[in-house]
Amino acid sequence: MLKDCFDNVRASVPLVHNITNYVTVNDVANILLACGASPIMSDEPEDVVDITSICGGLNINIGTLNKHSVEGMFRAGRKAAELGHPILLDPVGAGASTLRTDTATRLMEELPLTVIRGNISEIKTLAHGSGTTKGVDADVADAVTEETLPQAIEFVKAFAKKSNAVIAITGAIDLVADAKRCFVIRNGRAEMGKITGTGCQLSGMMTAFITANKDNVLEAAAAAVCAMGLAGEIGWAHMQAGDGNSTYRNRIIDAICNMTGDELEKGAKYEIR
Amino acid sequence: MLKDCFDNVRASVPLVHNITNYVTVNDVANILLACGASPIMSDEPEDVVDITSICGGLNINIGTLNKHSVEGMFRAGRKAAELGHPILLDPVGAGASTLRTDTATRLMEELPLTVIRGNISEIKTLAHGSGTTKGVDADVADAVTEETLPQAIEFVKAFAKKSNAVIAITGAIDLVADAKRCFVIRNGRAEMGKITGTGCQLSGMMTAFITANKDNVLEAAAAAVCAMGLAGEIGWAHMQAGDGNSTYRNRIIDAICNMTGDELEKGAKYEIR
Amino acid sequence: MLKDCFDNVRASVPLVHNITNYVTVNDVANILLACGASPIMSDEPEDVVDITSICGGLNINIGTLNKHSVEGMFRAGRKAAELGHPILLDPVGAGASTLRTDTATRLMEELPLTVIRGNISEIKTLAHGSGTTKGVDADVADAVTEETLPQAIEFVKAFAKKSNAVIAITGAIDLVADAKRCFVIRNGRAEMGKITGTGCQLSGMMTAFITANKDNVLEAAAAAVCAMGLAGEIGWAHMQAGDGNSTYRNRIIDAICNMTGDELEKGAKYEIR
Repeated sequence: MLKDCFDNVRASVPLVHNITNYVTVNDVANILLACGASPIMSDEPEDVVDITSICGGLNINIGTLNKHSVEGMFRAGRKAAELGHPILLDPVGAGASTLRTDTATRLMEELPLTVIRGNISEIKTLAHGSGTTKGVDADVADAVTEETLPQAIEFVKAFAKKSNAVIAITGAIDLVADAKRCFVIRNGRAEMGKITGTGCQLSGMMTAFITANKDNVLEAAAAAVCAMGLAGEIGWAHMQAGDGNSTYRNRIIDAICNMTGDELEKGAKYEIR
Repeated sequence: MLKDCFDNVRASVPLVHNITNYVTVNDVANILLACGASPIMSDEPEDVVDITSICGGLNINIGTLNKHSVEGMFRAGRKAAELGHPILLDPVGAGASTLRTDTATRLMEELPLTVIRGNISEIKTLAHGSGTTKGVDADVADAVTEETLPQAIEFVKAFAKKSNAVIAITGAIDLVADAKRCFVIRNGRAEMGKITGTGCQLSGMMTAFITANKDNVLEAAAAAVCAMGLAGEIGWAHMQAGDGNSTYRNRIIDAICNMTGDELEKGAKYEIR
Repeated sequence: MLKDCFDNVRASVPLVHNITNYVTVNDVANILLACGASPIMSDEPEDVVDITSICGGLNINIGTLNKHSVEGMFRAGRKAAELGHPILLDPVGAGASTLRTDTATRLMEELPLTVIRGNISEIKTLAHGSGTTKGVDADVADAVTEETLPQAIEFVKAFAKKSNAVIAITGAIDLVADAKRCFVIRNGRAEMGKITGTGCQLSGMMTAFITANKDNVLEAAAAAVCAMGLAGEIGWAHMQAGDGNSTYRNRIIDAICNMTGDELEKGAKYEIR
């Protein structure tokens, strides 16, 4: 039940360690608070082990990585792994630069990731190996559409199996899968793409969901995707004349702040395949 | 008079140098502008001495410290001390990691801090010495409540005396004290805790207040606390259906932007003990 | 036609690489999305060459420069130059510190800048040479007013000629000039100065405009200035009781999000001298 996943966040107030980009970090912190979690940000290598030790989960986002923070990601990740904390990787820009692709790939190889959440291009880059976009799965369409859905589901399950992580691909249609089951989610609005960092926000919130639902990671990750999409729908319903993407950003976080588990359960639009 | 403290900010437009975390820095800048001050951010060690030299006050916040910015904090702090500028320390996360505790402690030892502002846990960590939360004052309750108020006031005055700084502890009840007098402040709303960075914003604004009121630091610090709490009350009164923590953040800064010294004087809820 | 400049942004969706400060970066990203462009942020020296290679234009803002990101600025700038991408420099705080003045000056000397956008003090610092504000043009008034306008226009054209870049000076009256022509723009509101980062936002958006209008840089830069000022006017018209600078920030970005090329053409207030 998605409701239970959300209620568990509100009840347990998970402390989430975020090593995330400086572009969207404020919104990530506010959406974590909105959903009932508590955020801490720290990327200094000499600080991250202590910080991750007092947290319940780790959110790694490479959106504005630098050599110093990359070292922090590995140190925090190893400690989180040692402590059995869920770890989420958001491979922002994997495929766009060698450093991003290599860093995401190494994080995936060296850490027992719980969830990898990205757009289709980022996930394909990780699935196909570092430095190439012409790998064996190149026939998977770039965008997940109703037409390409069957192949996309096959792809995401195969990558979940190979990576031993839950894989979340977000876009017009969202897919959240482990090796056997795939949530196909149709919440959200296209206008969310005009806001910077809705993906980063989702990664932060998803880390809270999987931290509060460690034994039910697949459903928890799917619940976070549904919550984000539903917030996009609710936030849009509150838009008034003259409002644009900056106000829409606020309204989406506001919608998470006001959302109940029951509303999530009712508003979620998904099928399992 | 709190009114005068606020009016002095608006009249003198103090330039405040902020070495602060990247999570809440935008809101810190906007609230400084809202209250009538002018913010500058710089953490590069080779830049901070020049920047602090053209400013009137220094706000040091260790929320996302790194080794490079910590060096910047000390260089800026020494220069500010040399120039007689007020220096505020916000020891974010002191007690949560060795690096944070040590850095805050060293800053306190090496710089003539004007104000230290934090939550009760952070202040207790600094008061009890680095690396321990089991110090001599461990019987001070973690939260300041009506029941623990007398001991808390004793504690904050004692720490103010020992540290030779004004100490501001913010929470459900706020305390702002020097060695002899303690402002007990009851403005604000619990919902402010659902917004990231209201503490950081307060530290920024408080630096402006003490910079514009160098000869009246205790009252200026208390005035900033009252202003923030009152803004939380005014902002909340403007909340509409569907609004949540992200919009509330905007409304609090907006309330500071529109607040007059007279309104602060009338709306402040405090006693001196 | 300013309309065409804006329409070209919306039609071509330019990808803009931003090396910008962490204070206002979120608003920069959101205004780039609002105007129809796509933002990427990266300042790590080992990342920037790849990132700039997939982009169309480069926005360099030294607002919170550090030694690491300064190296990133030069590497990205050299690659952008090699690829023929437009490069905009926003010399935030030039004149306020030696590091900022020197960095801006070196960037100007070593890179074929397309546009330099700043306030009058920053531009004067660059025009007069590093480390001095008492250069040969010291008789140019600090603020551009109706009284000092003729001299200011002469100054900006001369500096545009000398620097071989379009120069944009923003303030109460905005000037955008090459060696021969100067747009004198009277859009905007004084209250925009109470928001942090309207200048940074303009620099980001201007980079999108010149990237989408590479053969018409002067007019594109002027169009961006008019759009920002007009958004300030439209956003202000939507302000309600209790709103302040934080909400105004949202409303300005919202106004860009909703603005059409036709509205820009009609609302722009400029003369060419």
